[in-house]
Amino acid sequence: MAKPLIAFVSDFGTRDHYAGVMKGVVLSINPEVTIVDLSHDLPAHDIPFAAHELAATYRYYPVGTIFLVVVDPGVGSSRRGLAAEAGDWKFVAPDNGVLTAVLQETPAKKVVELTERRYARPTVSRTFEGRDRFAPAAAWLSKGVQLTALGRPVSDFVLLDLPKPRLDDSVLHGVVIRIDHFGNVVTNLDRRSCERLTDGGGVLRLTIGGQAIGRIVSTYSEIAPDEIGALFGSTDQLECASNASRAVDRLGVAVGDPVELRRM
Amino acid sequence: MAKPLIAFVSDFGTRDHYAGVMKGVVLSINPEVTIVDLSHDLPAHDIPFAAHELAATYRYYPVGTIFLVVVDPGVGSSRRGLAAEAGDWKFVAPDNGVLTAVLQETPAKKVVELTERRYARPTVSRTFEGRDRFAPAAAWLSKGVQLTALGRPVSDFVLLDLPKPRLDDSVLHGVVIRIDHFGNVVTNLDRRSCERLTDGGGVLRLTIGGQAIGRIVSTYSEIAPDEIGALFGSTDQLECASNASRAVDRLGVAVGDPVELRRM
Amino acid sequence: MAKPLIAFVSDFGTRDHYAGVMKGVVLSINPEVTIVDLSHDLPAHDIPFAAHELAATYRYYPVGTIFLVVVDPGVGSSRRGLAAEAGDWKFVAPDNGVLTAVLQETPAKKVVELTERRYARPTVSRTFEGRDRFAPAAAWLSKGVQLTALGRPVSDFVLLDLPKPRLDDSVLHGVVIRIDHFGNVVTNLDRRSCERLTDGGGVLRLTIGGQAIGRIVSTYSEIAPDEIGALFGSTDQLECASNASRAVDRLGVAVGDPVELRRM
Repeated sequence: MAKPLIAFVSDFGTRDHYAGVMKGVVLSINPEVTIVDLSHDLPAHDIPFAAHELAATYRYYPVGTIFLVVVDPGVGSSRRGLAAEAGDWKFVAPDNGVLTAVLQETPAKKVVELTERRYARPTVSRTFEGRDRFAPAAAWLSKGVQLTALGRPVSDFVLLDLPKPRLDDSVLHGVVIRIDHFGNVVTNLDRRSCERLTDGGGVLRLTIGGQAIGRIVSTYSEIAPDEIGALFGSTDQLECASNASRAVDRLGVAVGDPVELRRM
Repeated sequence: MAKPLIAFVSDFGTRDHYAGVMKGVVLSINPEVTIVDLSHDLPAHDIPFAAHELAATYRYYPVGTIFLVVVDPGVGSSRRGLAAEAGDWKFVAPDNGVLTAVLQETPAKKVVELTERRYARPTVSRTFEGRDRFAPAAAWLSKGVQLTALGRPVSDFVLLDLPKPRLDDSVLHGVVIRIDHFGNVVTNLDRRSCERLTDGGGVLRLTIGGQAIGRIVSTYSEIAPDEIGALFGSTDQLECASNASRAVDRLGVAVGDPVELRRM
Repeated sequence: MAKPLIAFVSDFGTRDHYAGVMKGVVLSINPEVTIVDLSHDLPAHDIPFAAHELAATYRYYPVGTIFLVVVDPGVGSSRRGLAAEAGDWKFVAPDNGVLTAVLQETPAKKVVELTERRYARPTVSRTFEGRDRFAPAAAWLSKGVQLTALGRPVSDFVLLDLPKPRLDDSVLHGVVIRIDHFGNVVTNLDRRSCERLTDGGGVLRLTIGGQAIGRIVSTYSEIAPDEIGALFGSTDQLECASNASRAVDRLGVAVGDPVELRRM
């Protein structure tokens, strides 16, 4: 049996004790588990961002990995806690749509609500369910507890309406979905949708926030110092990048801004 | 025997090699130890902040965990290095009061000064004792070396005068002790002291930096978008939070500012 | 045989999925490896900075440690990927000079280009070779694959011209090479070069960005609150520091600015 692995992602930041405390709770239940920090610097309370990042990550992890996901603006409210199994992975997360992009790609086999008290801490606070409910659930899963033992099955879990590219005659419409650490502006225009647009041939022109992007290239290093180029990035989505400067600053765009890919 | 665990917290930041080097020193002495990063983003040289964060964390870690704590503005001076045992945990830290909040809650069983040269690196620099003295001490403890082997017992270790809430007739006086990643304003008014204030019944009103806080709620999600509310957070201390904005920005307060909880 | 260890350093930041994805790729190939995060907050695309930081770190790691280094502005271009063995350590990195400072101190025994396709992911993207080429190479090394199996030997790998101190009669000339998390201004004036300057006796005076630094001390705590002092820091290079403030802000200097140590 493979060594159990918990991949932990949150919006807790790395200054406070929140992520550290959750790791302690996990290790107190299962000292044998390996915890991998994915990120604790997701934008605070930004569920769509977290959904995209999780979907960009999980397929690269070993079979059996448990993802512990805490981006939870609704902590303590009536929103439920979930454990889900999809493909070869498991997920523990609040029921707020943060699993949407994963589950749209890899349908859930089983989803349960975290109702079983014996797999939570004795007192579940209404301000830190990450510590009291999610961390214990992930730790017990890593010890071999069955997903279905954690609570009752649910089928009406929350799914977000994440924006999808829309093909409209000769134009593919999309939006900016994230700005990365390097200032690259990532859109939801995936490679397959773009290729469908060019099936009939023709030149493509990308417009983002009303600004035309010069050309579509293959690598960051093809972009000239003063140029902004577009290319397919790590998630095979079209992104705008600039050589040795931050494309986002030069374009002045933000998440949600419209993008258009037009066949000329 | 449980797998040895070192929980590492510092104010080194994550850009420089300081934390990475210390992890290398630990693993060179004990390749079998698991190192958990708690935080390396504690505010630089802020000993009271570190003391509070450590106290908020240690109880959630497994029996036997060794905490390696480096917030050390006095590095290289005559301040001592310590190893301490309290409850089921051990601590390696400079003798500057950073263990105060832990030891006030869980009295020390043994405290020694790190004088034994064979458990330090051969040369102990005066600018990086974290690498040369604290990391090796934690690593040797994790290999089973006795605490008392690390140096001579000390009983006059430094304790800070951390501010405690003060009950004055119908008013509980306290201060802001930290601002968290979400902009929540955390006070030192703990749940027990607050409950003592309401023993005789009555409505409570919180004032912080001269501003009255509307009401005390149970969860972040009960706070309306334009409201600032108070609630007991992860450490069971009263904090001010705002829904979908940063309470600290709206209140304009800082660590050390006075807070009052008044029974009306 | 020691437990395999991969020490991972990048400029990916900790918000996006890039570092997390690479850790997943490594663990999918070798679930038994321990991954240590050195830093993912190196300044974006700053190869000399990364070269210095890596050189400040590797010697503290156990024999056999594999360093996975991704600061890669030329990703997807014709620049090569390398695996190198130097001293008791191995390195996987782009061929852009990021190993310069390590290899100047510890000459390479073997360097190969990462050409062997079976030790890369099936598809190697031109925007994320960290995931598709470097992470797999490090993981396979950690499983015991020989360095020479990863590709063909190369001897003309890129070495940067990192600035070295230059002794000119009674003056040692150098530059600022980094600003650390605490605002300390680190120069390339190493202790040995400085000692050579004082062989004949005499008082030393440090000038940085045209400003004279009061005196050379042994520890940060000797510097008075309003003073800027110089001392040998964690890498045994002369740095300027200020007590309880950031020397860099007070000096107004930047990486590359000249420094002079003069024997009076």
